[in-house]
Amino acid sequence: MNDSVKGKRVAFVATEMFEQVELTEPWTALEEAGAQVELLSPERGEIHGFHHYDRADTFYVDRVVSEAQVDEYDALVLPGGVGNPDKLRMDEAAVGFVRQFVESGKPVGAICHAPWLLVEADVVRGRTLTSYPSIRTDVRNAGGNWVDEQVVVDEGIVTSRKPDDLPAFVDKLVEEIGEGTHRRTTVGSEATAS
Amino acid sequence: MNDSVKGKRVAFVATEMFEQVELTEPWTALEEAGAQVELLSPERGEIHGFHHYDRADTFYVDRVVSEAQVDEYDALVLPGGVGNPDKLRMDEAAVGFVRQFVESGKPVGAICHAPWLLVEADVVRGRTLTSYPSIRTDVRNAGGNWVDEQVVVDEGIVTSRKPDDLPAFVDKLVEEIGEGTHRRTTVGSEATAS
Repeated sequence: MNDSVKGKRVAFVATEMFEQVELTEPWTALEEAGAQVELLSPERGEIHGFHHYDRADTFYVDRVVSEAQVDEYDALVLPGGVGNPDKLRMDEAAVGFVRQFVESGKPVGAICHAPWLLVEADVVRGRTLTSYPSIRTDVRNAGGNWVDEQVVVDEGIVTSRKPDDLPAFVDKLVEEIGEGTHRRTTVGSEATAS
Repeated sequence: MNDSVKGKRVAFVATEMFEQVELTEPWTALEEAGAQVELLSPERGEIHGFHHYDRADTFYVDRVVSEAQVDEYDALVLPGGVGNPDKLRMDEAAVGFVRQFVESGKPVGAICHAPWLLVEADVVRGRTLTSYPSIRTDVRNAGGNWVDEQVVVDEGIVTSRKPDDLPAFVDKLVEEIGEGTHRRTTVGSEATAS
């Protein structure tokens, strides 16, 4: 574990039907490493984790995503589950939060179907990433360079394909959050890790 | 109901987590109008309909999609449900069947999340269609002209957004199946209903 994660504030954005283990594993790892983790969702109340298509446990929302600001957080984690990003991508505040996070250069982790949110936020253009294979066509059509690897890091964006990839995903995520902000590629400048 | 549907053979392609009512309503309407309806799926055995995220009834697969030929059927119907097309789009035989069906000019109905299969088959380019709003960006990125209407017909492709649209979807579907094959737009010829 990376000591430099200590005290960092990490937002998890999810809604109904998130793949439970894709939230709980990074959550526990980050919490144990001393990070402050929070569950954000479009609405107050409870949401349910799922094991694939079966409803699992109940989770309490810490904060409504529309009230959150990117500058209050050091990193963003997006669990998958087919229904979760499918619903989140229709929420303007959630999509805007994801877009601003990526544009800020702060670390963003997205696993399984969660890269749909990156597609919706139109931030995959020219980026190399992976996802659950079912959405690779959507990633490519949005201008992303989709690859079939257990974990991919592109300037602070950490992506993985599925629950089996969680150990590699969590390792890279913790590493990136420890490193902090990456500078984004802009016209006339080169992309460099700060 | 359209008498010209009588005796026509209609394939429904679905897998686990299809939105049950999006299969049963067109199925019943077509069966009552005298069509021969069949449930095709990537694998033999049983699949489950869902009411949104809750498992509902068990359905028996009539035929494996990889053994089916487009020229054996007069029309294709694709129910939605977020998990169903998400899984089907990874099945090469299912995607190939959908692509060949659209290319044949025979009527194809797709509701809710099912237009993801049209995206995967790369047959939405230049076409006007609707879908569940969560996937509009994927439809647009694939070159489709996405519109927010209860039912859209574009040269034999009938699309709708959600279960509430089913009455309009079923009406148009029956009408299109009654009319039969539409000629596709090709270079040097105009699109005309045959």
